[in-house]
Amino acid sequence: MTGIEEVLSEAGQRVTPSASERERIEGLAKRMLAKVQAEVQRAGLDAEVRLDGSVAKDTWVSGEADIDIFMRVPASIPREDLGEICLKVARKTVEGYPQRERFAEHPYLEAWVDGIRVNIVPCYKTKKGEWKSSTDRTPFHTDYANERLTDQTRREVRLLKRFMKGVGVYGAEIKTAGFSGYLCEVLTLKYGSFRNVTHSAAEKWTRNSVIDVEGHYRGREDELPRLFDSPLITIDPIDRGRNLTASLSPDRLEEFKLACRCFLLNPSLSFFFPPKRAPYSVEEIGHKMTEHGTSILFMLFESEEVVPDIMWGQLYRTQRSLVNALQQNDFLVVRAAAWSDEKRRHCLVFELESSGLAATRRYVGPSLDRIRENRNFLDKHLNSPRRVSGPWIQHGRWAFQEKREFADARSLLQDLALRQGSKAGIGRILEASFKKGLEIFRNEDILGYYSENPEFAAFLSQYLDGRPIWLD
Amino acid sequence: MTGIEEVLSEAGQRVTPSASERERIEGLAKRMLAKVQAEVQRAGLDAEVRLDGSVAKDTWVSGEADIDIFMRVPASIPREDLGEICLKVARKTVEGYPQRERFAEHPYLEAWVDGIRVNIVPCYKTKKGEWKSSTDRTPFHTDYANERLTDQTRREVRLLKRFMKGVGVYGAEIKTAGFSGYLCEVLTLKYGSFRNVTHSAAEKWTRNSVIDVEGHYRGREDELPRLFDSPLITIDPIDRGRNLTASLSPDRLEEFKLACRCFLLNPSLSFFFPPKRAPYSVEEIGHKMTEHGTSILFMLFESEEVVPDIMWGQLYRTQRSLVNALQQNDFLVVRAAAWSDEKRRHCLVFELESSGLAATRRYVGPSLDRIRENRNFLDKHLNSPRRVSGPWIQHGRWAFQEKREFADARSLLQDLALRQGSKAGIGRILEASFKKGLEIFRNEDILGYYSENPEFAAFLSQYLDGRPIWLD
Repeated sequence: MTGIEEVLSEAGQRVTPSASERERIEGLAKRMLAKVQAEVQRAGLDAEVRLDGSVAKDTWVSGEADIDIFMRVPASIPREDLGEICLKVARKTVEGYPQRERFAEHPYLEAWVDGIRVNIVPCYKTKKGEWKSSTDRTPFHTDYANERLTDQTRREVRLLKRFMKGVGVYGAEIKTAGFSGYLCEVLTLKYGSFRNVTHSAAEKWTRNSVIDVEGHYRGREDELPRLFDSPLITIDPIDRGRNLTASLSPDRLEEFKLACRCFLLNPSLSFFFPPKRAPYSVEEIGHKMTEHGTSILFMLFESEEVVPDIMWGQLYRTQRSLVNALQQNDFLVVRAAAWSDEKRRHCLVFELESSGLAATRRYVGPSLDRIRENRNFLDKHLNSPRRVSGPWIQHGRWAFQEKREFADARSLLQDLALRQGSKAGIGRILEASFKKGLEIFRNEDILGYYSENPEFAAFLSQYLDGRPIWLD
Repeated sequence: MTGIEEVLSEAGQRVTPSASERERIEGLAKRMLAKVQAEVQRAGLDAEVRLDGSVAKDTWVSGEADIDIFMRVPASIPREDLGEICLKVARKTVEGYPQRERFAEHPYLEAWVDGIRVNIVPCYKTKKGEWKSSTDRTPFHTDYANERLTDQTRREVRLLKRFMKGVGVYGAEIKTAGFSGYLCEVLTLKYGSFRNVTHSAAEKWTRNSVIDVEGHYRGREDELPRLFDSPLITIDPIDRGRNLTASLSPDRLEEFKLACRCFLLNPSLSFFFPPKRAPYSVEEIGHKMTEHGTSILFMLFESEEVVPDIMWGQLYRTQRSLVNALQQNDFLVVRAAAWSDEKRRHCLVFELESSGLAATRRYVGPSLDRIRENRNFLDKHLNSPRRVSGPWIQHGRWAFQEKREFADARSLLQDLALRQGSKAGIGRILEASFKKGLEIFRNEDILGYYSENPEFAAFLSQYLDGRPIWLD
């Protein structure tokens, strides 16, 4: 008994909403629901409006409620009109409040009302299993959870959500690629309690673990790895064809498992409520970069305001393409990261062992017993204007020394960003933004930007420290 | 008929000694033989003195005769005395001429008499097959060749030797690790002519080719790769237990095969008599190094005068150890080379993509499902004073960024040379010489030394050009 009971008791109290918070949130939810209903009627839209998500399920974490209002429209409305028609109505209902479009398979509206996030989400009113879009399942998720959750398990869900937030793995959106709220509910229903979830994650989840609460595949679990290719398989209770952990990043999963292990070894409230790390001062971050001794390249650019999930998708895809190109050109990539203020400012970060390579590199031919291939190899390289030395024989092969196309990583990134563009796997939005203005900074060059952007400073501080906060 | 007959006819004339050269060499050989015999008698040594080697076999290349005089002593003389006793006698016979000790399994004497190299080599007078040292076979080689060679095949041997010298693969000593003179004779006896040797080498020699003139293993050739581990197996006609190509370097073998291919495609006298390449001027070599864009480190040192074969053995062994150490510390080694004036001055050359690395490097742990190994990995690295960042999770493993022990290749080489010494695989003679004075130069730092040492300049010019001269 190293205090795990005490930790859970204290955390349990802090995640459970008080009567007054409950009253405030539920009151706002009711008012917003009525408002959307009125607006739907006024527009003559045939839509069922209902409250869904964690407030409907009473599983929100104290202080962090989101209100999700779903507009279920008939399947007869064409898919391409769904967003536009419903968003128009939705926008009216939150007129005067800060709002922006977001995206999860199709667009929805996010607004901030009295300090609470309100999502207004269109979907189709379908029968179970006849989904037209993936959000069509949400009302069924709500009903499923409400039929099974108890006061006790609702508390466990809240603990699990807060723990996942604390260790940085909560959130199914592209940016995080972590665990969704519904997944937390399913895990809790499966294992019965927060402690059991953490215990299973820490000790029992292996490469092909399957979570199948409703037993859709009972007795046939070994077929599942062929059906679903992911490091953890979680069958949606209301849809046997859907793996709830398909978009969970393998690194997020591992982080969760490790955090669970550490928590069970050394339980502490800080897993749930981690102390904020102060960002490094400008001087400290400069020192930290010097200490790294690496070349950190920052690609800074601005875009028109874009739906965040689309932007994150492009940022990550572009980052992967650029890492591949850097590696193909012999740069040793230590790590890469992406940052966005989710409005206009974005940054791709590439940490390299060194941003400069030797001006030349060695080209090694095929095995010498392949006579024809060697003749081609020699013909090509003997006449190359880039040749500076060779050929000589080394370990049974011809070798040449030739000038590199890119000995400097910054030039390579510039070429990829500004000349090759989408051919090099750069996302369309980024391609356009790069052309309007791309700055590539190296190490200390970033310090000015760092001092002017606290959000970026927090990101870069965490990046350079590297350690998950729960290891402190 | 692209002139191969003409080329061979012209080369044949040039490699064959004239009557006057023959008279001069054979006369000197006789006189030296008599001198050694007289000195042996005077010393009361029980030794049979005889002429061996290419002059005895009439296979020397015009203008390049060496005179080999063998002193065959009874097997009763202890091995450790053989060198000393015989060398004392040998030294007397060439008193007043430049001379130095050399080494091939045991010591022998090399002297220069009237511009001709004379080797006086002690060995045991044994029966065939009862060898006490490997030079005991030489008289049997002489007799074997003389029984079988004709005027015609002697000319073919001369062509082969000169071709091998021209393309740089002749010489069995450690420095070259190429083809011996006796091997040229065996190859000629096997294939009948120079053209057949080149044709077989170019088109037919594969990984496990066997040359077994006397058919010692007839019908059992497939057993040979298990008995002899080498890329070409040549059974000594007079000793079935000996592979004459055991010490042939795989790169020399490949160079010979490629040179044969090129010669047959494009026959030319320059394979036999390559034009001398002039070394680069100091300005040109500086330009060439800049063009390479690499970091070339030169370890310069001096030693007491040492038997060349022993020195080359230590130079190559040390070079390999240092290359391994550089690679283990993440330096990308393009090439390494060794130079020696075979007296006191020596140099090890290491060409690196870069002699400086990032101050830190990434350490990646075991797969995360290995719980115990990961705990050890974390314990070790979390507490390391070299840690600058991490751990973070990357591709299913923990990763740390830590300071390198050696980010600069010169410091690493200095540490290996001066502190670790023989523990790091550095030869004893080099270890002692390093302590007396080791200079490590990088790129242009070498230019002063270059301009003062024409022999070194020729070596470095060939190194930086890289191409075999027969590819010009």
